This record gives sequence, structure tokens and C-alpha cells, in this order.
Amino acid sequence: MTKPTMFALVEADLRAVEQALAEIIHSPVDQLTQVGRHLLQAGGKRLRPALYLLCAKSRQGETRALVPVAVAIEMIHMATLVHDDVIDNAATRRGLPTANSRWGNHVSVLSGDFLFAKAFSTVARHATPAMLRILTDVVCSMCEGEILQIRDTFSVEQSEEDYLVRIAKKTADFIAASCELGGLSAGLAPDEVAALRRYGHAVGMAFQITDDILDITATSAQLGKPAGNDLRQGILTLPVLYALQHSPCREELRRLVISRDLDELGLERGLTIVRDSGGIEYAYEHVSRYLKEARLALPADLDGIVRQTLLAIADFVGLRKY
Amino acid sequence: MTKPTMFALVEADLRAVEQALAEIIHSPVDQLTQVGRHLLQAGGKRLRPALYLLCAKSRQGETRALVPVAVAIEMIHMATLVHDDVIDNAATRRGLPTANSRWGNHVSVLSGDFLFAKAFSTVARHATPAMLRILTDVVCSMCEGEILQIRDTFSVEQSEEDYLVRIAKKTADFIAASCELGGLSAGLAPDEVAALRRYGHAVGMAFQITDDILDITATSAQLGKPAGNDLRQGILTLPVLYALQHSPCREELRRLVISRDLDELGLERGLTIVRDSGGIEYAYEHVSRYLKEARLALPADLDGIVRQTLLAIADFVGLRKY
Repeated sequence: MTKPTMFALVEADLRAVEQALAEIIHSPVDQLTQVGRHLLQAGGKRLRPALYLLCAKSRQGETRALVPVAVAIEMIHMATLVHDDVIDNAATRRGLPTANSRWGNHVSVLSGDFLFAKAFSTVARHATPAMLRILTDVVCSMCEGEILQIRDTFSVEQSEEDYLVRIAKKTADFIAASCELGGLSAGLAPDEVAALRRYGHAVGMAFQITDDILDITATSAQLGKPAGNDLRQGILTLPVLYALQHSPCREELRRLVISRDLDELGLERGLTIVRDSGGIEYAYEHVSRYLKEARLALPADLDGIVRQTLLAIADFVGLRKY
Repeated sequence: MTKPTMFALVEADLRAVEQALAEIIHSPVDQLTQVGRHLLQAGGKRLRPALYLLCAKSRQGETRALVPVAVAIEMIHMATLVHDDVIDNAATRRGLPTANSRWGNHVSVLSGDFLFAKAFSTVARHATPAMLRILTDVVCSMCEGEILQIRDTFSVEQSEEDYLVRIAKKTADFIAASCELGGLSAGLAPDEVAALRRYGHAVGMAFQITDDILDITATSAQLGKPAGNDLRQGILTLPVLYALQHSPCREELRRLVISRDLDELGLERGLTIVRDSGGIEYAYEHVSRYLKEARLALPADLDGIVRQTLLAIADFVGLRKY
């Protein structure tokens, strides 16, 4: 299943989102507009606004203007990406130079702040205070997740639980919130809104674990950034944590990680140990379990096409190769 | 007039603000709490929440809970300071090590984002969407002001107008918004709210120009950061722009600025040229004019003590020496 088919139901809305994003990033200060355009052109899956829009259409007859909230969701995502690239000192993302490598850290920090403020402003204008609070809580959670990630860098003592808490905060909470906001926009009952949130959380966990697997199994060309990047930076993901416990070469892997300075050869050796350890298969088991949880969470009486699409997205997350 | 006297009317509220700030910065992630505590302990004038609280008390009988909005205002200020220090690569602020020098840029960027999100969340919970939008607009404006400042660094061609637009966005808009929000919390009529905003804008302009003067006239010990810092970094303030136009040594100053690399001797020479040019007096004339504007803007029938205090604050801004 390809992305356009999957998002067909909200294709027109997603086009409107792109249009609105292009307008809202405009600032009288040229450089802010340039960074915003750069971020827009870098594209992305628009997974979060698509999930929001789909969930918002889970009851027929809904007429509320949905585009502004979808725009705010994507702007928050863009803001976190531009700040993440500052934090990671990343040179490329999705195959393009990052904003920080092109305009410097100072402009990137400010562009992120600008996008956050614009996003919250948009939600304040078009949604309820409760919806705004869901999004501010998500930003707090993502900050906490990133700090935990920094804290646990190169730490071979961390547990699988540490990893799961961290990716919940870094990724799954935001996808959960996108679905929850959709449910609220659709005027669903509280238990249905909570169910959509659970769906989003499980999809988000599966999505991040897959991302972490692909960093080990995919090529740099497929990723649009260097493969093995996480391991090189000391970000220990589920397959690596598994290998550190179960690989016959776990002592060697441990030494490679705590050396904190992997050259190409060391990185390749580390990745090989992880691949040979069964860690990839173990991580995929987690993905399957989360996706099963996601499918089971979906309320039975959602609009039929929306429900089918949400199920298809769960399938897609498990199958994607880049 | 000292600060405690000036803020006497809102002293109890300001204590409640400190208390609430200490609680709200708490995060399950230790490092975020530590950075928040560090920022709180670094202190500050609490000028913005004090102005908000004063303006909110400009009608007697007001009972709305004012502390949360004051807290949000100070959190936004703290967030911009911590991001500013990342942008400027500053080592000290108010005589203490900056968060970035202590915990690194990554933690500082995330702490700022966390504070922004918490602040907006607090406003969403306790104020109207219109009040939230005033604050999100302020953050956008401050980002624009900072970008303009970066753009104009070392640019000897910039005009006085460039400088005034920049400091309006960087500083005055936020102080204006604090007063405006106070007026809204007090339930004032729209023209009175607008008048308080004009007062805040003029006080903010005077405040920033004084700050820029002090960077040239005060000692490092008084400032809690190195004197002449702006000039060293190529941030050209009103006295410098005046000297670049009117000093007999303007060509020498120009060469010093565009060298982009002032040693102690060059910096001292640059500061001497500015001091001898009449630029300080010229900038103080601007301060006086803005403070006159501030006093005239104040509506006649505000609560008497509030009005007297706002007038005293205008006096204080013109007289402060650090």
C-alpha cells in the first residue's frame, strides 16, 4: 500500500494543509520565511496531520474547519525537527542540508521558536483550550524524551524500559495526541477519543522502533542520512540493547559503544554484531505486538473507510523499508 | 526609588509567582528541573510579571486569579533568555554561569522549548484564547527581532530606524503585551487597554535603550557580564550608531567595527570614541522622550496607587544604573 492510496481520503485536506503552511510560515523577516520554506520543501510523510484528519473524519457529517489544527500539528513537528538538528549537530535530513548547516544554529533555534509560537497561536484561534493543552503537553513530553536520550547516550547499562519510556515521549505521545485531537474534532465520545489515542500511541511506538531498525538495516541512500547514525552517536536502540544482552559478541559491542568514537570500521563491526544477534527480529516482534494493539484499539463503529484506512496505516508502518 | 518600594503593591503576588514558578518548572526528568531552578535562582527584575500584575489591579475589586498569567509571562522571558544565551554563546548572565555553559546547548535548547510549552499551557488553562494569542504573537515578534539583530551584526550601514524596529520587536513588544494583558485581566475598556499597551511599549523602548547605554557606560561588575559586550559582538546600539554618524573619529570607529575582531585595546578605543561622541547623551534624549510618552499614555482614571506606581516605574527606568 503506497502513501497516496493510504491518505486518499484526506488528500484534498492535505493539499490545503500544504497551502496553509506555505502562507503561515511567512514573516516580514526574510530569513525566517526562507528557513520555513526550506523545511517545507524538505517534505516529509505528513503522517501526524494525516492521522489527525482521518480521525477527525471518523464520524460522517463533520463540518468543522480541520485544516488549521492539522497545520499546527505539522508546524510543531517541523519546529522539533529543526531544533533536533541543532541538538544533534546534523548536516543532512531527508537528503537535504539541514537548516543549521545552512543558516547556523542561531537562526535554527529562532526558527523553531517561531514555528512553535505560530502553531500554538493557530490552535488558540481555531480550537478549544483543552486541545491546545494536549499539544503543549506533547511538546513538554518531547523535550523530556530528548533530554532522556541525551542522558542515556553511550550508556550500556540502560534497560529496555528506559528505551520504551524515551520513545514514548519522543515520538508516540505526539502521534497519540494527533489521533486524540482528531477524535475531539469529530465530537466522539470520551471512550472513543481515548481509544483513538491508544491506537495512535501504539502506531507511534511501532513507527519509532521501525525507524530505529531501519537505521541499522537500510542504506544511507534509502535513509537520506548516514546509516548507523544512532549507534555512532551513542543512541542505543532496541536491537542494540538486545545485542548487548544476548549476542555472543556482546563484550566486543560493549567496548565499541563505550569507546565513544567509532570509525567506519568500528561502526560496521558494531552493526554486524547487532544484525547477527537476532536483535532486529526481536525489535520486529515488538513492532508486530504494538501494531496488533493498535488494530484492537480501534472502535468498531468508526466510519468504515476511516477505519479501513487506519488499519492500512498500521500495516504500512510495519512494512515500510525507509 | 528602589525596586521593593516600586513593586510594593504587588509584592505578595510576586512572592506567589516565585512559588508557582518553582512548582511549575518541575519535571520528572531531573535535568529539566535543574535548569529551571538554575534560571530561577539567577533571579532578575521580574519587571514583566510586575507590570502585568500592576495593570491587572488598575480597577479595584478585581478578583480573578492573576498569578498563572504572571507565571507564564516570566516563563516566556526565561525561555527567551536561555535560548538567547545559546545564540550568543554567552558564558555568564547576571554574574552566574549560563545554562548552556553548564549543561550544553542541547539541554538549553530543550529547556527553552519546555518553558515555552509550559507557559502556553498555563495561559491556555487560565486565560482567554485572545490573551494566549497576544503572548504567541510576542514570541514571534521576539524571534523576528533576534533574527534582525543577527542580520545587522557588524553592519555599519544600518539606520537608527533599523535599530528602533529591532528593539521594539526584541523588547518593547513583550513589555507592551504584559501591560495589555494586565488591562484585559482588569476588564478595562478597549481604549484603556490600548493605552496601557502604549505605556508598556514606551517603557520597553526606554528600558532597552538604557540597557544598551549601560553596556557602554557601566563596569563589568555592575552588569554581571563583560562591559562592551554588544560592541564586541557587533551589535550596534543607538550610541554607537550616533557616533558612526557624528564622531570626528567616525572613520576609525567604522574600521574597528568592520574588523569583526576587537581585542581589549580595540574595544576600549571603540567605547571611548562612542562616549566622546555625544552618543550617550543622544540616546538618553530618546529615553526621556519615550518615558514622557509612557507617562502621557496612562489613562487618568486608573486606580490612584497603580497610576503612581506606573509613573514611578517610568522614572526608575530612566535612572537605573545597572
